[in-house]
Amino acid sequence: MKSIHKDIAIIAVSGGMDSCVTAAIAAMEYDLAFAHFNYGQRTQARELKAFNDIADHYKVRHRLVIDFTHFAQIGGSSLTDRNIEVEKADLSKKDIPSSYVPFRNANILSACVSWAEVLGARAVFIGAVYEDATGYPDCRPEFYEAYERMADIGTKPDTKIKIITPIIHMNKSDIVKKGDELNAPLYLTWSCYRNEEKACGVCDSCAYRLRGFAAAGIEDPIPYDVRPDYTVNN
Amino acid sequence: MKSIHKDIAIIAVSGGMDSCVTAAIAAMEYDLAFAHFNYGQRTQARELKAFNDIADHYKVRHRLVIDFTHFAQIGGSSLTDRNIEVEKADLSKKDIPSSYVPFRNANILSACVSWAEVLGARAVFIGAVYEDATGYPDCRPEFYEAYERMADIGTKPDTKIKIITPIIHMNKSDIVKKGDELNAPLYLTWSCYRNEEKACGVCDSCAYRLRGFAAAGIEDPIPYDVRPDYTVNN
Repeated sequence: MKSIHKDIAIIAVSGGMDSCVTAAIAAMEYDLAFAHFNYGQRTQARELKAFNDIADHYKVRHRLVIDFTHFAQIGGSSLTDRNIEVEKADLSKKDIPSSYVPFRNANILSACVSWAEVLGARAVFIGAVYEDATGYPDCRPEFYEAYERMADIGTKPDTKIKIITPIIHMNKSDIVKKGDELNAPLYLTWSCYRNEEKACGVCDSCAYRLRGFAAAGIEDPIPYDVRPDYTVNN
Repeated sequence: MKSIHKDIAIIAVSGGMDSCVTAAIAAMEYDLAFAHFNYGQRTQARELKAFNDIADHYKVRHRLVIDFTHFAQIGGSSLTDRNIEVEKADLSKKDIPSSYVPFRNANILSACVSWAEVLGARAVFIGAVYEDATGYPDCRPEFYEAYERMADIGTKPDTKIKIITPIIHMNKSDIVKKGDELNAPLYLTWSCYRNEEKACGVCDSCAYRLRGFAAAGIEDPIPYDVRPDYTVNN
């Protein structure tokens, strides 16, 4: 007889569209536990609200909000360092953008694996996307494979935690469509790196998001200051 | 011509004997940057004092004190959870002790690698010891090898950070002798899991330390409540 209890999975939920769709995918198979990270980013309060709204939507009981204050101390990113400007998007650029927070995803996964070991969770989901990772080295599939191997060696012998990146090979348009298909509450998500009231529409994160909605032929339900046309002809 | 500037290394310094000797070893080759972690452990204030005392001794300018409050939130260890008693030492036991903080060293290394990437450091030193790791899976050499591989994939292409565990194959007596040889300020260190005034002498950490000093034939310079005789005849 099959157990009616699902295994627990930890989902790293920033409050953005990617993590929301990741949670929707995980929910098909697992009981959800949500982890969120404040790391001194400019839009911290707005992201936390999105996290809780999405958690409420999925009736998630296990929630963990972690203060990663060291990222602001360490600096090096426009997301956490007020002396570095958040650049306007240039979607053709291939350099590592100023918003790169050094080795952020490894820090996030490590806290999630610690929590997973205590909760007895079997998986950690993270909504990393390779496409918009132009130069974010901790968004590459090989990174997650190496991470899972390391975590397997570094945890108790009876602990086996899968690191799952279900949207890593999707582009933003695929993600919007998948969210739509699974009724993920995209209207509750927040992606803008700059603002907390209305999304700016011009930072990297807004640009990728708007282009994704445009390509999917769906209107982005959140409010914007400006909505440039990021439609690409390819 | 050889540069007079040494490369920078980040040292994870708890304030205990192992991290102090690790720093002494690193100091022979690198410019030191010290990272310390508060993770809600009982003796947090005393360990932080030891950290700063050792940093003063080595005239370390780059210091980073990180609040890992999530370990107290996550629980699961007697070091951070007041509902779990810190066991008296039983050095013959092979189980994972209640003081195990799940996946702690991966969290510590991840923060150190983030900082290393910003500082341009070439190495991260951590004073993990395999011998007293009876069951701490994140103290095994294979774990550090897997970690270094993962970090290499997850950081910028031009970042190459070595993970160095110089005392991993030493026993506590070797560590005491090495500290003595390098004039490491062992009198400034703190190891006790229970107390902040005088070391208890009976927790795991005190027991290993006192046994190490006894085996090295050197008197431990710090004050103890009680000093049981942990001399072993082998």
